[in-house]
Amino acid sequence: MPVPAINLYPPFNILRLSHVDYGVTDLAASRAFYADTLGLQITHEDATRITFRAMEERGHHCISLVKSDTADVRALAFKLFDTPDLDKAEAYFKDRGLPTEWVERPHMDRVLRTQDPWGIPLEFYVRMDRLPTIHQHYKLYKGVKPLRIDHFNMFSADVDASVAFYNDIGFRVTEYTEDDESGKIWAAWMHRKGGVHDVAFTNGLGPRLHHTAFWVPTPLNIIDLLDLMSTTGYVDNIERGPGRHGISNAFFLYVRDPDGHRIEIYCSDYQTVDPDLEPIRWSLTDPQRQTLWGAPAPRSWFEEGSLFKGVTPRKSALKAQPIIAP
Amino acid sequence: MPVPAINLYPPFNILRLSHVDYGVTDLAASRAFYADTLGLQITHEDATRITFRAMEERGHHCISLVKSDTADVRALAFKLFDTPDLDKAEAYFKDRGLPTEWVERPHMDRVLRTQDPWGIPLEFYVRMDRLPTIHQHYKLYKGVKPLRIDHFNMFSADVDASVAFYNDIGFRVTEYTEDDESGKIWAAWMHRKGGVHDVAFTNGLGPRLHHTAFWVPTPLNIIDLLDLMSTTGYVDNIERGPGRHGISNAFFLYVRDPDGHRIEIYCSDYQTVDPDLEPIRWSLTDPQRQTLWGAPAPRSWFEEGSLFKGVTPRKSALKAQPIIAP
Amino acid sequence: MPVPAINLYPPFNILRLSHVDYGVTDLAASRAFYADTLGLQITHEDATRITFRAMEERGHHCISLVKSDTADVRALAFKLFDTPDLDKAEAYFKDRGLPTEWVERPHMDRVLRTQDPWGIPLEFYVRMDRLPTIHQHYKLYKGVKPLRIDHFNMFSADVDASVAFYNDIGFRVTEYTEDDESGKIWAAWMHRKGGVHDVAFTNGLGPRLHHTAFWVPTPLNIIDLLDLMSTTGYVDNIERGPGRHGISNAFFLYVRDPDGHRIEIYCSDYQTVDPDLEPIRWSLTDPQRQTLWGAPAPRSWFEEGSLFKGVTPRKSALKAQPIIAP
Amino acid sequence: MPVPAINLYPPFNILRLSHVDYGVTDLAASRAFYADTLGLQITHEDATRITFRAMEERGHHCISLVKSDTADVRALAFKLFDTPDLDKAEAYFKDRGLPTEWVERPHMDRVLRTQDPWGIPLEFYVRMDRLPTIHQHYKLYKGVKPLRIDHFNMFSADVDASVAFYNDIGFRVTEYTEDDESGKIWAAWMHRKGGVHDVAFTNGLGPRLHHTAFWVPTPLNIIDLLDLMSTTGYVDNIERGPGRHGISNAFFLYVRDPDGHRIEIYCSDYQTVDPDLEPIRWSLTDPQRQTLWGAPAPRSWFEEGSLFKGVTPRKSALKAQPIIAP
Repeated sequence: MPVPAINLYPPFNILRLSHVDYGVTDLAASRAFYADTLGLQITHEDATRITFRAMEERGHHCISLVKSDTADVRALAFKLFDTPDLDKAEAYFKDRGLPTEWVERPHMDRVLRTQDPWGIPLEFYVRMDRLPTIHQHYKLYKGVKPLRIDHFNMFSADVDASVAFYNDIGFRVTEYTEDDESGKIWAAWMHRKGGVHDVAFTNGLGPRLHHTAFWVPTPLNIIDLLDLMSTTGYVDNIERGPGRHGISNAFFLYVRDPDGHRIEIYCSDYQTVDPDLEPIRWSLTDPQRQTLWGAPAPRSWFEEGSLFKGVTPRKSALKAQPIIAP
Repeated sequence: MPVPAINLYPPFNILRLSHVDYGVTDLAASRAFYADTLGLQITHEDATRITFRAMEERGHHCISLVKSDTADVRALAFKLFDTPDLDKAEAYFKDRGLPTEWVERPHMDRVLRTQDPWGIPLEFYVRMDRLPTIHQHYKLYKGVKPLRIDHFNMFSADVDASVAFYNDIGFRVTEYTEDDESGKIWAAWMHRKGGVHDVAFTNGLGPRLHHTAFWVPTPLNIIDLLDLMSTTGYVDNIERGPGRHGISNAFFLYVRDPDGHRIEIYCSDYQTVDPDLEPIRWSLTDPQRQTLWGAPAPRSWFEEGSLFKGVTPRKSALKAQPIIAP
Repeated sequence: MPVPAINLYPPFNILRLSHVDYGVTDLAASRAFYADTLGLQITHEDATRITFRAMEERGHHCISLVKSDTADVRALAFKLFDTPDLDKAEAYFKDRGLPTEWVERPHMDRVLRTQDPWGIPLEFYVRMDRLPTIHQHYKLYKGVKPLRIDHFNMFSADVDASVAFYNDIGFRVTEYTEDDESGKIWAAWMHRKGGVHDVAFTNGLGPRLHHTAFWVPTPLNIIDLLDLMSTTGYVDNIERGPGRHGISNAFFLYVRDPDGHRIEIYCSDYQTVDPDLEPIRWSLTDPQRQTLWGAPAPRSWFEEGSLFKGVTPRKSALKAQPIIAP
Repeated sequence: MPVPAINLYPPFNILRLSHVDYGVTDLAASRAFYADTLGLQITHEDATRITFRAMEERGHHCISLVKSDTADVRALAFKLFDTPDLDKAEAYFKDRGLPTEWVERPHMDRVLRTQDPWGIPLEFYVRMDRLPTIHQHYKLYKGVKPLRIDHFNMFSADVDASVAFYNDIGFRVTEYTEDDESGKIWAAWMHRKGGVHDVAFTNGLGPRLHHTAFWVPTPLNIIDLLDLMSTTGYVDNIERGPGRHGISNAFFLYVRDPDGHRIEIYCSDYQTVDPDLEPIRWSLTDPQRQTLWGAPAPRSWFEEGSLFKGVTPRKSALKAQPIIAP
């Protein structure tokens, strides 16, 4: 089995993914998409930046949009368990020769910025401003009624190496796709917070961000979003779905924001808190791993992704995804 | 407007579509599909024939399967309002030079068999055996929890003529697609029972039966069926969907039975009992008429249909459906 | 069986219930309830009157609220099939010595006002202003996402007589409760449009209007309304439910408007277009006829109702409803 | 605030609740309830014992039923993170003078049995037999489609003390009810696995087990169960619901098994992995803490609970729950 053994005692304690910082070219267009269409709640807004939270979140934000000349991704951020974990994280990345710095971020206390070996910008913090609960303010629910950020999915040019690195800092593989010929991992889903994943990696031109996902309670919320988007000028922003992935069992929908950043709406995965949870293996030749049922994914879904600011992706040595013509 | 004026006082009173008689090549395979997978209830079964009803129906059956050497359609049947309507129907079809005969059918009283001008075999009756209610026998619900038969959809080589004929016997157009260039009706949805349709006609090699539809209460029932079919060996029987049609507003799924007969699972259309309900016009060039949202239909969905036994379809003079490559 | 035989050829053709005219004491409060909370769409508004339609309706309104000193009900209105039915209706009511008059009503053509033998004010029309479709304007959907008006439910001091009268004008009994001791009908559900009922009558101090019902697609819409009402100051307006009635199989919720008019939100009944549909009999001693499951109804639900303007209700000779202490 | 500060570094690492051992008087009756009605999957069955798992669980069981002369509770069991946690747990309980023993349990490796200071029998383990996944075997889903065990709820005669004890071993308070007069905690919800609770305590004659809860994906699954139970002879086993709790935001249903053990079916709480998650305070005088909406709970729900075998409950010094007459 190519999946590394679970790392029960990682060097620092990552609690969960926290938020993504996107560069967007038109704040008003993005606001209409994230707030009025998806239904995320605005928690800060000024001339250059808007932040949002989902309905059950109490941290200040799960998405931060910054006005930018080009669409890009500025940081993937994670919340750590306790204050000492910040210093342990700094030591860990320094030891591996990766750049670290303490950066100022609005609404957060100390923030450590670093990157993974392939250049993905990572930020870690312990304390973010906490906001009053709104999960029972039902009047505010709209759009897809997003409850919380769920995961990041990234293209990697060397998934085996990505999995080894993220396993080393405590992410646990729940499911993975293996290339039967080479024995290499073609894709992997890895978690910290007890769902199928906080981060996932798929073979391809990388590093790039494939999508950020939000969790909703039922497939009907996703159908409501489809009805709304298809009758408010967003029909072309619907990229793939609805369908169910074999991997993760998720009922999914993929939409693109006005800059092309891909957002997944997601429900019905499962709890994964057991450290002896056996990773589920899927063969690259099994089409149901991707699509338990539903139409085949369009080519754009396989090929397009968001660039991390200042990071040039490189080709994978593995062959490209076998796209099944719809 | 190419749609004929509503015919308030038709020559005889058709209440609703009632049932379809399919010829199938393997009764056991069909039984597994209709009973164990879709969840229809068996109401009669012998060596050559199986009948089914849906959960809220009290008439004996909505589908009859007959063992056959080749897959085909033997009859589309309709329930009439009252006994005199049977004789009025006979007179009507005779007047138009169409063949009529009184046939013996199990579980039914007098049955008039005739055909439309293009050869579609039609059967009319007033009384069918009535069965005890089972709609509150919740233990019996399974599969997609089908509640009732909803409509027949047919290919027609001359939709204008089909609409004129069925309008004459009382079917009312609720929605239609117009070919802007020719001004001809490209497709039409026509009802008797107060929903969007009991019958529909689409331009193409006809007459052929495109599908028979069943009504279910919510999209979640359809998602349950997809989960079931994709994990019990029926994944290749899923042809199209889920999605929403612009026309009729239906949330839909199309599946194929073991002989290739197409079944639609359908919900969320609307009530149409007002005789002054304005038909909704769609342009043939509007892709959302077919797919408000959802993946494009596969080629098979546009081209394949069930043959009526003994009836050779002919080509339409109109150009073929503009298939949008997915 | 105490239910009268079905009347296949009534004296005039009632299509369906159409709308209710309520007198309300505070238009602004009612607007907040019907538009902002239930999600009905305002189609007319002036200083003394607001009208609403539900999402799939194309007639101008299904509720009309008139500023009034006291809360009351001004009319229950029905749409007739064709123009001659208006004159036939006038003749019918005149023949029975019931008062008839042709009244002016905004948004409608000729309107016949009359009353049933116990004083319930009835209005009949053929043509009402037709509005553009909004059922696919998904941005407008809110609250409980009401799709259409479904039925009126009335207290009657003599249900046997009410059933006989409404049967005579074409309403068909679908289900009824029988008092086993007296053999009298204790309650009855009667339809024209193909659902379980357009009108229902329950034994009690009558005539009074027990409730007006709206149809929604799924129980989840009702749960959304409960969440909304319980967190926006309307928790005390929730009277009964959610639950399922044995009778009609409806998943239900009863709420009270600011004047106490009772509104039912309703889904999952069944189609009833067959004229040979057997009425379902329930015994008055069967608690599941009322509540297949769910908490017992509160006393207010059994006892309170809206008065018809100018009509003094009288006591029923039958004993009161056996209230099951919750 | 009466809630103790979060204990970030507990003496041993409890992962989650795992299973309950019930004594039941009629195994066949319990089997019909848990397997055929709720839809749990049987994983072991012999003349004296049946075990079950829910659909997404891979551990051998979440409920174990043992044939018994009287209905009771034999153990509440928890899974620990890693092998050393077992020895740390033994030391912890020994230090506090609580009885500990290593017991043999089928399907599990080393099991530590102990009790809390009030006699609640607790069992801890690290390894239980792991079973193949069935979460995508959709043909097996039935009843309420239970996905996983969610929590235990117990009566405590001293909730302040219970909270202090369980906080000490790492359970974190997410929500609590405070008696404004005394300043004492009236009830508390405490978690390990990242939901609102693994255990909860409510003031009352204790210790007793109020209920064991299962998590389902949507309210519609709960409505399906209500339909099923109310038409298969289990209508009297429905005790309370459906409704929504203010506390935890759960959509809930309470049913009683054939011995009276109470089972909650539960969905729509929220994720709680942040250690700085602020406990939500509710006042004992706020009726919406219990019932955001829904009928008042019956007296049995407040008063009845399952006895722990051999443990005599004692009265609480606090006054009884203010029962709101329905």
